[in-house]
Amino acid sequence: MMQRVDVHLDERSYPIHIGSGSLSQAHLFKPHLSGNQVAVISNDTVAPLYLDDLLTALGGADVDVFTLPDGEQYKTLDSYAAIMDFLLAKRHNRSTTLVALGGGVVGDITGFVAATFQRGVGFIQVPTTLLAQVDSAVGGKTGVNHPSGKNMIGAFYQPRCVIADSAVFATLPEREYRAGLAEVLKYGVIADPEFFDWIEQAGEKLLDKDPDTLVWAVRRSCEIKAGVVEDDERETGLRAILNFGHTFGHAIETLTNYRTYLHGEAVAIGMVMAADLSVRVGSLQLKDAQRIKRVLQSLDLPVCPPTELSDDVMHRAMGMDKKVVDGKLRLVLAETIGRVIVTEEIDASALRATLNAGDVLCDG
Amino acid sequence: MMQRVDVHLDERSYPIHIGSGSLSQAHLFKPHLSGNQVAVISNDTVAPLYLDDLLTALGGADVDVFTLPDGEQYKTLDSYAAIMDFLLAKRHNRSTTLVALGGGVVGDITGFVAATFQRGVGFIQVPTTLLAQVDSAVGGKTGVNHPSGKNMIGAFYQPRCVIADSAVFATLPEREYRAGLAEVLKYGVIADPEFFDWIEQAGEKLLDKDPDTLVWAVRRSCEIKAGVVEDDERETGLRAILNFGHTFGHAIETLTNYRTYLHGEAVAIGMVMAADLSVRVGSLQLKDAQRIKRVLQSLDLPVCPPTELSDDVMHRAMGMDKKVVDGKLRLVLAETIGRVIVTEEIDASALRATLNAGDVLCDG
Repeated sequence: MMQRVDVHLDERSYPIHIGSGSLSQAHLFKPHLSGNQVAVISNDTVAPLYLDDLLTALGGADVDVFTLPDGEQYKTLDSYAAIMDFLLAKRHNRSTTLVALGGGVVGDITGFVAATFQRGVGFIQVPTTLLAQVDSAVGGKTGVNHPSGKNMIGAFYQPRCVIADSAVFATLPEREYRAGLAEVLKYGVIADPEFFDWIEQAGEKLLDKDPDTLVWAVRRSCEIKAGVVEDDERETGLRAILNFGHTFGHAIETLTNYRTYLHGEAVAIGMVMAADLSVRVGSLQLKDAQRIKRVLQSLDLPVCPPTELSDDVMHRAMGMDKKVVDGKLRLVLAETIGRVIVTEEIDASALRATLNAGDVLCDG
Repeated sequence: MMQRVDVHLDERSYPIHIGSGSLSQAHLFKPHLSGNQVAVISNDTVAPLYLDDLLTALGGADVDVFTLPDGEQYKTLDSYAAIMDFLLAKRHNRSTTLVALGGGVVGDITGFVAATFQRGVGFIQVPTTLLAQVDSAVGGKTGVNHPSGKNMIGAFYQPRCVIADSAVFATLPEREYRAGLAEVLKYGVIADPEFFDWIEQAGEKLLDKDPDTLVWAVRRSCEIKAGVVEDDERETGLRAILNFGHTFGHAIETLTNYRTYLHGEAVAIGMVMAADLSVRVGSLQLKDAQRIKRVLQSLDLPVCPPTELSDDVMHRAMGMDKKVVDGKLRLVLAETIGRVIVTEEIDASALRATLNAGDVLCDG
């Protein structure tokens, strides 16, 4: 059964279609194609699995396909330039429509190309990972990485439509699937205690990919994200709550060269660190922090930062994070399960204590 | 005396300050700086002339300066990437402000960097050519060229403020100055017969750079452009009238590798060709077309396409222009002086006749 969540952003509003088999349904794509030209951007892992189904759904359109190698290391300005070259060589024009078939890397690059190809063309997200379905494909953040940090180059640019097919999780590696669950749990922590309870209960079913459980997890995550994005499309304030766990997580990813952890895994660790810091500054009760950690563990996610990263190194890596405003570090802290705050008033010694691995939550 | 024109685009509204000495006035910059970090992007011709004055105006800010080589051939994705590298090496963050000090190339690249550095930061345009003051610095078109065509990569992104200093024309090469007058005349043709009359009368004073005449020419041009942009920020319709003469002009620039003509010169020729085509399809009276040509000539601008470009070659070059919508060529035709229309219904034989150099207007 197909579910629909709408992201309301005036003339940039769009639907998210969630359900098994959605990526093969022509009628979901049709209303969002600007003209007859379509370019599908995918990667060499996903394309062999789902490109044929997608091409069937795109039926009569004049489709060109560009395939990137799979991996975060290809989320670069070079890949961006290669796609631009491809579109121009194939003579795509301002009324082309791009379709991103893949995970966050493909979606973010394709969105950034769409935002800037001839000053903006339409695009459709077909996210094929759990992480992309509940996070990166929704909300219009697009971009590429730079050697100095993630997503340093990009734009806010909304898709015309998101098609989240839950059948794709059957072929998603277990580890990637579980990493996506970290972001699902994040929505409970930042905005919805009942959803957090539900995930805590549904843990086994989620790990087993029970179809109805999955559709609800994706749907509720998208609803929460849509609500936040509707209030603050360009992250001038509230939207920063979506970064709960991410400032720590990004620093860990950067310092391990994006090789040791999947994004969701780094975020899982980052959420525990953010919870730990929240306890240290007196914002969150210890039992709630421990509960966050326990649910992440029950989802087979890592919850401790790598011991080889010194607090100095972490501190510096966090300072270069783009969430720094005019030299001030902004962090998202939990107040309770279901409510977080964004603050620039960080107690330096509490932060140091959290960064020194032997902390309460990881010892406990 | 300082003049002010406002571009009304809701929360993206901004002022244009026009007058002699404006780029040295700190109070014009101050309200538009997001934080203390500022990056000035300029080129190696303009920086030696005006950078010191600008730095004085930026007073207490923490300023880094990046200088490009001068020239359209540097309006590339490579220059864009080099500026991104520079900003990140200097640890600029989301509350930095970019200042573009230069002509259209510097303004367009800087605007595109501002649109996409950490998903968007503020920027100020300080255009130092007539062309940039009346056209490229106003309206939010940003971008870089691609070997396959001009401005193929870019974004719509409005500056926080435009500071148009008329004193800079004293150091602007005569030829570049005159090229800018082509765009000034264009505003008369597309929207304001009285302004056209005024330019026709003021020809000598314009060529002599009479200060008051200049300020009015820039001011009225900016007002007309602002009005069009306010109605159609993202060029879904009306804004296309600003391209009068540009589809022909871009083709000429592309085919001569941007070496033979300045943009305004190519536009001057393009306006005559567009007027010629307008006469051939019965939309414009011959005497009006001839008047457009005569005024351009009086401003010492070229009015005939280069004879070595065959109609086949021109036709193909126009077909690759990004103003083609789903395979259809859109052109702007004049109906009278002061009114133009955008059409996709082009009489193929009339277009061929215009493209065959020996046309009515160039013979007459």
